[in-house]
Parts: sequence; structure tokens; C-alpha cells
Amino acid sequence: MKIIVDAMGGDNAPSSNVKGALAAVKDLGVEVILVGRGEEILAVMQEEGLKEPPAGVEIVHASEVVEVCDNPSTAFREKKNSSLTVGLNLLRDGKGDAFVSAGSTGALLSAATLIIKRIKGIRRAALAPVIPTGNGGAVAVDVGATAECTPEYLLQFAFMGSYYAEHVLGRPEPRVGLLNIGAEPSKGTDLQRETYKLLEQADKSGRIHFVGNVESKEAVLGAVDVIVADGYSGNIFLKTMEGTGSFLGKKLKEVFQKNLVTKLGAVLVSGGLRAFKKIMDPGEVGGTAFIGISKPVIKAHGSSDAHAIHSAIRQAAKVASSGIIEDIAENVDHMRIHPEEREK
Amino acid sequence: MKIIVDAMGGDNAPSSNVKGALAAVKDLGVEVILVGRGEEILAVMQEEGLKEPPAGVEIVHASEVVEVCDNPSTAFREKKNSSLTVGLNLLRDGKGDAFVSAGSTGALLSAATLIIKRIKGIRRAALAPVIPTGNGGAVAVDVGATAECTPEYLLQFAFMGSYYAEHVLGRPEPRVGLLNIGAEPSKGTDLQRETYKLLEQADKSGRIHFVGNVESKEAVLGAVDVIVADGYSGNIFLKTMEGTGSFLGKKLKEVFQKNLVTKLGAVLVSGGLRAFKKIMDPGEVGGTAFIGISKPVIKAHGSSDAHAIHSAIRQAAKVASSGIIEDIAENVDHMRIHPEEREK
Repeated sequence: MKIIVDAMGGDNAPSSNVKGALAAVKDLGVEVILVGRGEEILAVMQEEGLKEPPAGVEIVHASEVVEVCDNPSTAFREKKNSSLTVGLNLLRDGKGDAFVSAGSTGALLSAATLIIKRIKGIRRAALAPVIPTGNGGAVAVDVGATAECTPEYLLQFAFMGSYYAEHVLGRPEPRVGLLNIGAEPSKGTDLQRETYKLLEQADKSGRIHFVGNVESKEAVLGAVDVIVADGYSGNIFLKTMEGTGSFLGKKLKEVFQKNLVTKLGAVLVSGGLRAFKKIMDPGEVGGTAFIGISKPVIKAHGSSDAHAIHSAIRQAAKVASSGIIEDIAENVDHMRIHPEEREK
Repeated sequence: MKIIVDAMGGDNAPSSNVKGALAAVKDLGVEVILVGRGEEILAVMQEEGLKEPPAGVEIVHASEVVEVCDNPSTAFREKKNSSLTVGLNLLRDGKGDAFVSAGSTGALLSAATLIIKRIKGIRRAALAPVIPTGNGGAVAVDVGATAECTPEYLLQFAFMGSYYAEHVLGRPEPRVGLLNIGAEPSKGTDLQRETYKLLEQADKSGRIHFVGNVESKEAVLGAVDVIVADGYSGNIFLKTMEGTGSFLGKKLKEVFQKNLVTKLGAVLVSGGLRAFKKIMDPGEVGGTAFIGISKPVIKAHGSSDAHAIHSAIRQAAKVASSGIIEDIAENVDHMRIHPEEREK
């Protein structure tokens, strides 16, 4: 298993990317290709006491870096020598099994769609992070790749999310819920009402286990394994969770920092508090898979440290060996609305 | 100031409703009319050591109760003797200044719209709760009254939310943000892009202080005073906050209940923890105002205890004396897309 890692993407690149990759090679038994400015990558290795890349680590030089200010839709084309473009070309050409980047989500999505291409029959790719929930995590799909969706896109997201939960999270018969503002099939907008019917059909034919609409509160508390949403709503959902976690984390800190007595209280529960903080930490989950793309592409969080890059590489290896892409490709016919059905 | 209180709506009715109302009369200097089954209301008063309603408290008998299983759109008509219908009729006829109910949101919305009517020119009413945020609270409008919206509805929500923040929360020049998945005007769906333009115009003409798109994370952390959203997205936002708060609350409890040492830690920070729990407690905020209705109607949380009913009555009195409804009515012409502009 060989993972291609964008050494230059993210807030802490190349340092965290290189260190995370080195650790992954050591711990996970994978090989990595680090793509980026060779001299900068080597400098990080030297900091780590290495004179040259260790066994299992290869460097592929790429002189350019996609920056935040670059146009996400065209950056990969305008910067042909960027770590993003060079890395994805390596993936396309079969030089590695998956690609991991902590760079711009928009640029990665455009580049992956155009260089690697979508799975045949899949209309839109989706961002499918594993979010912390009461049932030990759920896949949310989509959370921002496609803001405006049709019922058919959502049908495809539901299938792909279900396969992800099964293959990557190891959930047998994943419970699929449609994010909505009430349980009844009549709730929400036309998009949710139409999608509900399609998901019900898919459930009846035994292809996914659709449990109906799920309200966002119940989704967080762990009612389902897969949360299906258009990219606009899914992003609102995800970012509200992040914001609330961050807001409550700050408030909790104030509680503990009030005086000497409360500081002692913090010491007594310090182990538990560390675990508590990790719940909402995106670095723990690893990265967000781009599902619907014909090879594994994983987006690590922009603020990834070495530990987060390590987690994203582990996740990439898991996706690459899971068979999910083959499974989607084989079943794509069941995820389409055929022309005669569209007439209805 | 006289507040009409639905004594029968909510999970803890009539006990909490009556007790909350009695306390409000004592503390806030308001009068109340309790609407519901007279004998049940009197029984609660007797529990409190009262043989008859004290000064400032009146009982208006209503024999029926709107139940969860009733059809929300027609319940008020089918149950003409319900506390909901009788109470709103009293409000319409000027027997009180505001109406508070902890009963079904849908039934209350339908009944308020049809009995009290919307302010002339306002196309849809909206639910406008004050949500806990990093800046001490923000008004979110709408969070579920109208799932499917047009740009004009959202323009009206923005104005009404801004007036609410100014008059009821006491924020001078409230910062109005459009809930979206990125800061740029091109983000989101057609609905957000079209609404952005309208809000920008309203800002340029000095009528509201539109600060642009706001991502849900920043909204929670306190970037704006008014969060404008269609009812579907606003509901996802609100319920995700509630769910995340509840989820993290449970996890925090686990941290403290682990063993004797952590339990001692909990004792040391107990005051702070109580304050922490209150942050996400809907009972603290009081109720959710229905904005756009021509008289003040406040929805208290379904699980309201006496304290929450007390808070909702306080809020109702505040809305009734704030002048917000008059302000909306006077400015409604600025909240409309005129026919010639629609052609564009």
C-alpha cells in the first residue's frame, strides 16, 4: 500500500505533513510518496535526524504550491507543477493507491474531479467526513462539495455513504437517515420530499437500510450511521457542531480557570478532560473522504498537525483497501433515476 | 400589562404553567389570564396554598386541549373551546397584550396566523428564538415556521430580526448576517445569492446593518446579532446546536462520574458547572417569538417548567412594550420587492 501525500498543503506544511508521513510509515506499514519542494521536505527530515528519506519514503519534487488566494476551480491547471497537480497525476497513473492533502478543499475537489474523474454514472462527488456522534461516529454526506442538489444526487450520496459506513467504519447494515426538520415524510422542502420517496424505494428493494428522516439533534445523538444531506445543509450541520463544540469548550475553560479551587478541580478530572476535548477534534478522525471519485482522495483538515496527517494516512489506507470504490461502480445502476422515471 | 397564558399546553401543564404565571405576577408586576380547565387550574393554586386566584390573576375557562396527535393546521378550528383558540381570541379582542403557550408549535403558528393575522405586507411569519452565542445571544430567524422561502421572505426576516435585536435585546445597530457556507457573495444556493443582493441594498439605503454571509461556526461564536435563514436551514442550525450541547453534556457527565477523585473534582467546580449547563438550557431564554404576527405571540419550550414559563412571560411583556410590531408595520414598504423590481 502506497499513499501519496501532498507535503505542501495545509497551515503547518511541510513540517507536520512530513513528520506525520514518517510516523505513518513506521507505525502502519505503508509506503509514502511525499510530493512538494524537495529541499524543504529534506530539511524537515534533517530536523528529525535523517540524512536521506528512510525506507518506504519517496520524494517527488513539485516546485509550486496552491495558495488560499488561488482560484480553486483553476489552480491545478494554472499551477501544473504544484504538489496538488503532480500528486494527483501520480495517483491517476497508478504510482500510488490514495492521495492525501491538507490544502484547499475547493482546489482539491476540482482537481480530483478533473484529473482522477468521477466513478462512471456518479453525478457529483461528495465530502463525507466521519463526525463524532453518540453512536461512535456517523458519515455525513455531503457537507459542502455540492451546495445545490437534486433528489438523484442525494440518492447517490445515500448509497455511497452506506457503503462507506459498511466498508470503512465496519458497520453491518448501516442505518441511513435523511437530514430533515421532522420525522414525517411531508417535512422539509421539495428536495427532501422527493428524495424521501427514492430512498424508500431503495430500502424496499433491499439495497440500503433507510430509516427515514432524521432531525439534526437526533443525528448528533447517534440515531443513524449515515446522514444524507445536500452540501448546503450538510455544511450548516457540520459547522454548527464545530462551532458549538468550540463555544462550549471555551465556556468550560472559564469554569475551570475561575480560581484556585476550580483549578484543583481541573487537575482531578484532567484525564477525562483530555478525552473530552478529543471528541470534537477533527485531527482524531483523520480526514474527509471525497466519495464518488474513482480513486481514493482524502482531505485532511487545514490545521492538521503531524498526528492528524498520520490519522488521514491511516484512513486513506483503509479506504484504498476497503473495496468501496469497486462496490459503488458495480451498483451504480441502482443509484440512477432512469429517463422514464424522471417523467413522473 | 396583561399576559394571556395557555394553562394547558406543554409537557408539564397545567402545573408548571400555573406556578410560573403566579410567580411572574409576583415578581414582574404583570397581570395574567390563565386559559384552560378551570378546576385543574384551581387545583394547582390550592397546592400552592391559594383558595382563589390572587390579585392580578384571572381564569378563563376552556374545556378542550390541543393534543400532539391533533392536526396542527386545523386543531384550533376543530377545537374551538381549546385553551389555544380561546386564548388567541382573547388576544385578538384586546383582552390582553400578549399570548404565551408551551403547546404544539405548528398548531400555535397556524392559529396565530389565522386568528391574529400577520402584519399587513408581511408574507410569512417566522420563529425567532434567541440562541446562546459567544456575544451573549443572537436572534435566529426563521428556525422552522417556513421551510421553503423566497428571497423576499428572507429580506423580511432580516428586517424583523434586526428590529427584534434592537428593541427586545437592546442591541444598537444590530449586525445582520445571512447564514451560509462561506463568506463570498457567490456561496450557497440561488436563494442565498439572490437574498445577498437584497440585503446589500437594504444596507446601502441605511435600513439594516448587513455584514454579509456568516458561516454557522462563526454565528455560534458570536459574529452577528441576527442570523437570517430559511426555516429548513435555520432549524438544522438550531437543532444541531441543541444536539451538540446535549451530546457534550452527557460526555462531560461521564468525565465527572468516573470515580471518587473525579466526583470530588465535580464538587470543586459545581457552581461553574451549573452555570455551564444553563448556557444551553432553553428555559433560561424564555420562549421563541413569532415575528410577523400583528400581536405578540410567544412559544415557550414544550418541556417548560415553572421557571421557563416565568421567563417566557417576562419575554412576552418585553416584546409587548418594545414597539417592535409598530416598527415593522411602519417600515413594511422597505421590506418588499416591488413588481417592477421583480421583473429584473
